[in-house]
Amino acid sequence: MNILLVYAHPEPKSLNGSIKNFTVKRLEDSGHRVQVSDLYAMKWKTTIDASDSREPLDSQRFDPYLESQHAFANGLQSQDIAAEQDKLRWADTVILQFPLWWFSMPAILKGWIERVYASGFAYGVGEHSDRHWGDRYGEGTLAGKRAMLVVTAGGWESHYKPRGINGPIDDLLFPIQHGILYYPGFDVLPPFVVYQTHKVDEAGFNQLTERLGERLDTLSLTPPIAYRQQNAGDYAIPELVLRPDILPGKTGFSVHIGD
Amino acid sequence: MNILLVYAHPEPKSLNGSIKNFTVKRLEDSGHRVQVSDLYAMKWKTTIDASDSREPLDSQRFDPYLESQHAFANGLQSQDIAAEQDKLRWADTVILQFPLWWFSMPAILKGWIERVYASGFAYGVGEHSDRHWGDRYGEGTLAGKRAMLVVTAGGWESHYKPRGINGPIDDLLFPIQHGILYYPGFDVLPPFVVYQTHKVDEAGFNQLTERLGERLDTLSLTPPIAYRQQNAGDYAIPELVLRPDILPGKTGFSVHIGD
Repeated sequence: MNILLVYAHPEPKSLNGSIKNFTVKRLEDSGHRVQVSDLYAMKWKTTIDASDSREPLDSQRFDPYLESQHAFANGLQSQDIAAEQDKLRWADTVILQFPLWWFSMPAILKGWIERVYASGFAYGVGEHSDRHWGDRYGEGTLAGKRAMLVVTAGGWESHYKPRGINGPIDDLLFPIQHGILYYPGFDVLPPFVVYQTHKVDEAGFNQLTERLGERLDTLSLTPPIAYRQQNAGDYAIPELVLRPDILPGKTGFSVHIGD
Repeated sequence: MNILLVYAHPEPKSLNGSIKNFTVKRLEDSGHRVQVSDLYAMKWKTTIDASDSREPLDSQRFDPYLESQHAFANGLQSQDIAAEQDKLRWADTVILQFPLWWFSMPAILKGWIERVYASGFAYGVGEHSDRHWGDRYGEGTLAGKRAMLVVTAGGWESHYKPRGINGPIDDLLFPIQHGILYYPGFDVLPPFVVYQTHKVDEAGFNQLTERLGERLDTLSLTPPIAYRQQNAGDYAIPELVLRPDILPGKTGFSVHIGD
C-alpha cells in the first residue's frame, strides 16, 4: 500500500518522534511505500490567508471558502497545498499522528487540514438535491481510502473513560474522526491512543510498539468505525437529522455509528 | 468590567469582522473597557516551539511542557505570550470569537491557546494529593472570571441538533468550553452561535445583533454552564471518574454538567 503519515510534533527526540520512526520502519519493512509529512520539520504554514492563492478572485475581501474554491478549480493554489493534496491522492491509507493538546490536534496540524482541505477537494463536492446533499460523510474525493489516528496524551487513561472527567476519548476524537476524516470520504479505523506519556519507559515503549505494530500489520483488515453514510437513507435530507425510527430518543455523537 | 475579545478571522470585511465591531462598540457604549486580540492582524505566531523561551532549559531536546513551565516560572517567555497572559489577568470576562472550521476553532486560535496557556499558568497548577488533583476544572489561575464563545458556522442549524449529522453543537464545543475554558477556572457562559453564515443578509444581521446585544448586556448576569468542579466530591481522586451514584449508568460529555 501507499501510506501517508502526517506527523505533528516539534521534537524529533520525543516519544512522538520515536513512535513515528517505529511506524515508518515497520511499514517499510512490510513492503509498503511511505511518505511522511513532518509538519514542524517542513515549517508548515499554519494559517489560511489570501497568500494561499497565486491569483485571488477578490483582492479586496478575502473569503476563505470562495478563494479556496477558485484556487483549487483553476490550479492557482500555493504549491505547498497542492503537494499535500497529491500525497493524499497517492495514499491508500493516511495516518495522522499527534499529541493531544488541549483535547484536540496541535495548531500546526489543524492548519494543515484547513489549507489542504480545499473547497472542491474535501468539501463543496457533489450535487445538492432533495435526495443527495453533497458527496460527504462516507462519499467524496477520499472515498475508498483508510485513515487512522495515532494519538498521545499526558493524562491518565481513566480520565478519558466513558465517565472520566476529560470526557470519553471517542467523543473527544469524534470531531476529527467523523468531522475531518469521514467527511471527505475516508473509512476511519479505530484510533491508537497512548496515555501518561511522561511515564513511558523502555518497557512501556516496547509494549506500546508491540500493540502499535499489530495495528500497522492489520491496516487493510481492521474493520472501520461504522459511521452512517449521509446519503444512504438514515438521514432526512436536507435537514440531515437522523430518522426518528433509528435509535429513537437517543442523541449525541454515538448515534452516528451504525451496526 | 474589563473585557478581552480574542478574535480569529482573516478578513475585516467579513461577517465575523462586523460581529466583532458590533461587539466592541456595544460593550464600550455600556461603559466596559475592551481589549481586542485580533490574531490575524497581530500576525500571531501559531506554532509552539523552542523559540518561545528566551533561555531554554534543554537546548538539545525541546519538551513543550517542561520548557513552558521553566519559561513561565522564570520570566523567560517570549514577549507576545506574556502580553496575552497579562490581558487574561486584566480581564473580568473573555470572549473567544471565531468561525467553526472543521468543527473546531481556527488553527491560529488553537495556537494562541497552546502558547498562552503555559504550564504553571493554565495547567500544572496546584497540589496533587489523594483529595485534590491540581487546581483545574473549576479552580485555577482564571477562576472568578467568565468566558463565552461567539461562533459562526456555515452549516444549517438542524445539522447541529441533538440528532443532526455533524453532532450536537454543545458536544462539538465541549472540548473548548470544558477542556479549554473551564479547565483553568473560567465560568463558561452558554455559547452564542450563528448558523448559515452565507445567508446572513442585512435583516439577518439586525436580528443577529439584537440577540447578541442582549447576551452582551447580560454578561454578568447569565448563569454559567453548571460544570462539576473536579475537587468538590463528584469525582473519585485520582481516577477522576464520576462517582457511581451520580447519574448512574450515564456516559458522555453531558454527565459533567450538574443541576
